[in-house]
Amino acid sequence: MGSVLALSGGVGGAKLCTGLAAELAPGALHVVVNTADDFEHLGLYISPDTDSLLYALSGRNSESRGWGLSGETWQAMDALAQLGGETWFRLGDRDLATHLFRTEALTAGMSLSEVTSLLARRLGIASHLHPMSDDPVRTVVHSVEGDLPFQRYFVGRQCEPPVTGFSFEGLDAAVPNGALLELLESDDLDCILICPSNPFVSIDPILLLPGVWQRLRDCPAPVIAVSPIVAGVAIKGPAAKMMAELGMPVSAAAVLAHYQSACPDMLTGFVIDLSDATLAPEMTATGVKTVATATLMKTLDDKRALARFCLDLARQS
Amino acid sequence: MGSVLALSGGVGGAKLCTGLAAELAPGALHVVVNTADDFEHLGLYISPDTDSLLYALSGRNSESRGWGLSGETWQAMDALAQLGGETWFRLGDRDLATHLFRTEALTAGMSLSEVTSLLARRLGIASHLHPMSDDPVRTVVHSVEGDLPFQRYFVGRQCEPPVTGFSFEGLDAAVPNGALLELLESDDLDCILICPSNPFVSIDPILLLPGVWQRLRDCPAPVIAVSPIVAGVAIKGPAAKMMAELGMPVSAAAVLAHYQSACPDMLTGFVIDLSDATLAPEMTATGVKTVATATLMKTLDDKRALARFCLDLARQS
Repeated sequence: MGSVLALSGGVGGAKLCTGLAAELAPGALHVVVNTADDFEHLGLYISPDTDSLLYALSGRNSESRGWGLSGETWQAMDALAQLGGETWFRLGDRDLATHLFRTEALTAGMSLSEVTSLLARRLGIASHLHPMSDDPVRTVVHSVEGDLPFQRYFVGRQCEPPVTGFSFEGLDAAVPNGALLELLESDDLDCILICPSNPFVSIDPILLLPGVWQRLRDCPAPVIAVSPIVAGVAIKGPAAKMMAELGMPVSAAAVLAHYQSACPDMLTGFVIDLSDATLAPEMTATGVKTVATATLMKTLDDKRALARFCLDLARQS
Repeated sequence: MGSVLALSGGVGGAKLCTGLAAELAPGALHVVVNTADDFEHLGLYISPDTDSLLYALSGRNSESRGWGLSGETWQAMDALAQLGGETWFRLGDRDLATHLFRTEALTAGMSLSEVTSLLARRLGIASHLHPMSDDPVRTVVHSVEGDLPFQRYFVGRQCEPPVTGFSFEGLDAAVPNGALLELLESDDLDCILICPSNPFVSIDPILLLPGVWQRLRDCPAPVIAVSPIVAGVAIKGPAAKMMAELGMPVSAAAVLAHYQSACPDMLTGFVIDLSDATLAPEMTATGVKTVATATLMKTLDDKRALARFCLDLARQS
């Protein structure tokens, strides 16, 4: 098998990517990560989705907390609280090293792609990790309380304000990652997987970069998405809550409809959970082959099984 | 008693300042701190001498390590080492909070004086802490191996390369701290103490700011210095090693001679250690009343006793 491209947000996507990395030959997996969640905080450049991938793919992520590093400590945040500093975005002591390293490298003139590759290498990751763009794209959450920068909404407000929509500052001017564009031109690319990440704030920013979804559509490799909605709920994060607030049905079918509406004719296949299996025929009737499997990923075996299922589906497409 | 002004470098000066703060009424002590050691590292603005004062005056300093915070942990440095980042300058996890707080405030447009006052207040310090200038002044160590930025020499090279001299980039253009200038004009200023800090790299940068030593000389308040050299050795740091390398005798008398040469007629009194008491008459004969007392400060009682001694000497002057 050749290369596999995964588009991913943070924690949920990182689970499937961990399975893919374990199933594929070393270096065969390319992950393009959402950077529209990136922000500057305490003078540091923070790239939350990239870090979720870095930590998961290097086996350093905390499974119990669900984000950040395992064995993390919080001395710096505790001391910052004593100084009256901003602690709404929790930065662990070991996590801080990543932000310091990245920020310094960016300040020294390295591109986000370069420092991401360097971090992945230093952490012993064989897979290729690519930020979706070296240019800044920033998600703005439109809510009934007004516009909020993404992390203020997501972490600061714990996704509480009902959303009315999203926009992505800088999107139109952002150049998609060069490695992504190369891969999409490459004969070596076997399939493209859209991870079970938040469609609105994790996957859309990648797909809506200038020309990206059109290139996915026109690329010979199959494009397979995995639903982040299972039995009407999101496994993690605010996707279900957002769908309800946007007036959409909260279902895997609505996720598929969203992708088909935003990126017509792009998807080759769609993977839903067994608990939604009865929806498959109706969804397949809309033009995208929809198949059900166990999509909850608690153990490495779960992650590998879902990865295998997606890869098999791609081979059959 | 009115206000007392102390000029200080890092750890040694912080000891005397701790004694002074304990002896004086809350808020009576003003400390002007050397900032020629300040530097940018890992994207953070680091002010080592200021932090020594902040930590000592708030009772947070590590007595056993001799620098930094007590109860410090090193997770961020450990993780940074795993990333192959720069760890020659050890930043503790709790210490990082200070640098993040200060760097962010400076980036947001606060002056170094303002953020220093804010940090002191947040740490519950009643004394007033002033960086010597809001403008950057940077010590360059001239050594037999060429020029070195101060922290590269001091921490990176552990003061190993023999020195041939020092220069202070930015000194001529730096405006002395406004609170310092005001104090020197004030009727309320009772005395000025020069702490037992390194004369060359901690005290000289303060005194040599445009007009500063001349104002100390012309000010009615007595100016009393404490020798950092005791029985021919420096209590802490490279002062003795530097004196030898510069071809000076390593003695309290040579420290006095240095101050008299750099800042003629500025000093009113000079405090030396009991172990050097026999030097006092000869030193007094050079025109500066020199008196001996116990200057080693291990306990708070030691610090308070030396502070009282200096204050009494000032009252008699």
